[in-house]
Amino acid sequence: MVIPAERRRKIARAVAKAGAEALLVTHLPDVRYLTGFTGSSAALLVKGSRATLFTDGRYTEQAQHEVDGAKIVITEKPAAVAACELAVEQGVTLCAFDSAQTTVEGLERMKAALPAKQRKNFFVATTALVAGLREIKDEVEQETMRSAAALGCRLFEQVLEEIHPGATEMEVALALEFMARLAGAERMSFETIVAGGSRSALPHGRASSAKLPKRGFVTLDFGVVVNGYCSDMTRTVHLGPARKGEFELYEAVLDAQLAGVAAVKAGISGTEVDAAARKVLEDAGYGEYFTHGTGHGVGLEIHESPRLGKKREGVPETKLKAGMIVTIEPGAYLPGEFGVRIEDTVLVTATGCEILTPTPKAWIEL
Amino acid sequence: MVIPAERRRKIARAVAKAGAEALLVTHLPDVRYLTGFTGSSAALLVKGSRATLFTDGRYTEQAQHEVDGAKIVITEKPAAVAACELAVEQGVTLCAFDSAQTTVEGLERMKAALPAKQRKNFFVATTALVAGLREIKDEVEQETMRSAAALGCRLFEQVLEEIHPGATEMEVALALEFMARLAGAERMSFETIVAGGSRSALPHGRASSAKLPKRGFVTLDFGVVVNGYCSDMTRTVHLGPARKGEFELYEAVLDAQLAGVAAVKAGISGTEVDAAARKVLEDAGYGEYFTHGTGHGVGLEIHESPRLGKKREGVPETKLKAGMIVTIEPGAYLPGEFGVRIEDTVLVTATGCEILTPTPKAWIEL
Repeated sequence: MVIPAERRRKIARAVAKAGAEALLVTHLPDVRYLTGFTGSSAALLVKGSRATLFTDGRYTEQAQHEVDGAKIVITEKPAAVAACELAVEQGVTLCAFDSAQTTVEGLERMKAALPAKQRKNFFVATTALVAGLREIKDEVEQETMRSAAALGCRLFEQVLEEIHPGATEMEVALALEFMARLAGAERMSFETIVAGGSRSALPHGRASSAKLPKRGFVTLDFGVVVNGYCSDMTRTVHLGPARKGEFELYEAVLDAQLAGVAAVKAGISGTEVDAAARKVLEDAGYGEYFTHGTGHGVGLEIHESPRLGKKREGVPETKLKAGMIVTIEPGAYLPGEFGVRIEDTVLVTATGCEILTPTPKAWIEL
Repeated sequence: MVIPAERRRKIARAVAKAGAEALLVTHLPDVRYLTGFTGSSAALLVKGSRATLFTDGRYTEQAQHEVDGAKIVITEKPAAVAACELAVEQGVTLCAFDSAQTTVEGLERMKAALPAKQRKNFFVATTALVAGLREIKDEVEQETMRSAAALGCRLFEQVLEEIHPGATEMEVALALEFMARLAGAERMSFETIVAGGSRSALPHGRASSAKLPKRGFVTLDFGVVVNGYCSDMTRTVHLGPARKGEFELYEAVLDAQLAGVAAVKAGISGTEVDAAARKVLEDAGYGEYFTHGTGHGVGLEIHESPRLGKKREGVPETKLKAGMIVTIEPGAYLPGEFGVRIEDTVLVTATGCEILTPTPKAWIEL
């Protein structure tokens, strides 16, 4: 596998561009992205074409199996501390770190590993050097995420049979997760959301012991992990015939979702995609009930850059680029009554997008 | 439920003692501990007897159901930013934050929410104010963790029937996880470890597609979450009769584990407990193969303070206190051959400990 080495070459160029001589990587998904290592404790020092992975004795064998091209150092010290010491040994005087992934205490510990005279000016804060690279999925990643998303779609079909009045949300989630693991998912991307009846008004209603109603919405929001990559999809189905207002809300959310998907293409900003979906719900009178953003990047983590939401003061807008994989998931939630969310994961292309979760979105009555 | 309010009173005293006027809490398990709120996005401002929880529109209803005694503010701003603004409004001039749970970038964002003249001296770094309180489990927590640990023990008994030559590690893990969820576990505490044959030499061998051997060790390390609290236990069993050296290694690890458990009591340090277990393995000639620490605290998170390991330069030793719940899990791993780990979770008492995972530890041959 030559991919991690290619990624490290790109990162080395970004580090040089940021004016630093090396990069200390401590965020585990970033370490995995740049080396292949999947252990739970590690740090990586990238200096030009040299990369050194630090981990502890629990991972001696695993690191040898997994790591591509980087030197492996097993240490009893905190991995980041050992990495700092090597950086100094290698003559580094200016080292980039990711300020969004390093705690204030962690930075102090890293500084404490340096010779006193270097402490003040050794570290240069950068954000999102690796996260920025990870935004664009390469072909192998795209193919993995296609598989993960396709598995999610098959599971959705299967789990429909488990959705009936009186079943608990937890039973539905459990059936789904069992089928997922049987089908080869490593784990779920996040805690499965199954929210029935008035609980569908909870945007993040994790499956509870509540029973599904005879009549009402059931929202399913779930994802599976395949080869480390997350899928993410939401569909809202209906038990029994619609009550007053339910079909109207569903149609408004569906129209908003379709508008969001239609807006996606390279060059548009996340804020613009959000605005396209939001306008549909506002025009239908549900603007105040759409209480979250329209979507987010997905990959090795379930929430990655970019963010597709309202403009935030002081936060620069991200333009979508071909190769990004993002969710489009507007929803509207009438407190105490019911709610609807519909979500696809899509791959951004030059002219639009490829929907990775092509499960139908028309009203489903069970 | 009056517990979060009591906890907040204790924290308010600790904040005053640290010389600050208020505490900004952003680590979600800490927020949960102090308010009951389980959502995935929140910040909490504690100023004397006043507590204000900030979250976003996805959690309006859930926050109302869950939060005990704190004021709830729904905001479109990042929760920590909104909390900073309120702190300033409330006249706070010196605010504690947790430097082990706040990123460098997060602190910069929080500072940016302040009036320019207050930015420099507003925040005072503290570590482990809430984590320190969380180290000692109150009676409700102890009872919850007893239940979680007991469920783990029952599941271990059940899963033994799934362990046979040719079954894949993943099948065993899947059966275990399915039984766990059926029995009411919210989720697993961490990715289940099932490591058979030579893979038992991997201390963190997450269940893979490898088949269990006709003859050899199988290590199971797993936990369940009940009411938010994690269990954690490890047993190593043997398929078929022992090969050369296997029984000896097992006995050495078992003796080390018993020595570790015997050392536990209020007043002893984590380093001393580690040394007690480590000495047994060193004396038996396996010292170099015990490549990790002896244990860690468990609670709302699977890894909490305190740490039971070798002394680390610059890190103060923690004395165990009655009410702490920690794991005792020595192991020894012969690379490429086989390994053994045995782990209990124990509640520290004034004179010793209560073993929460009383599953037998004698050699099990399947």
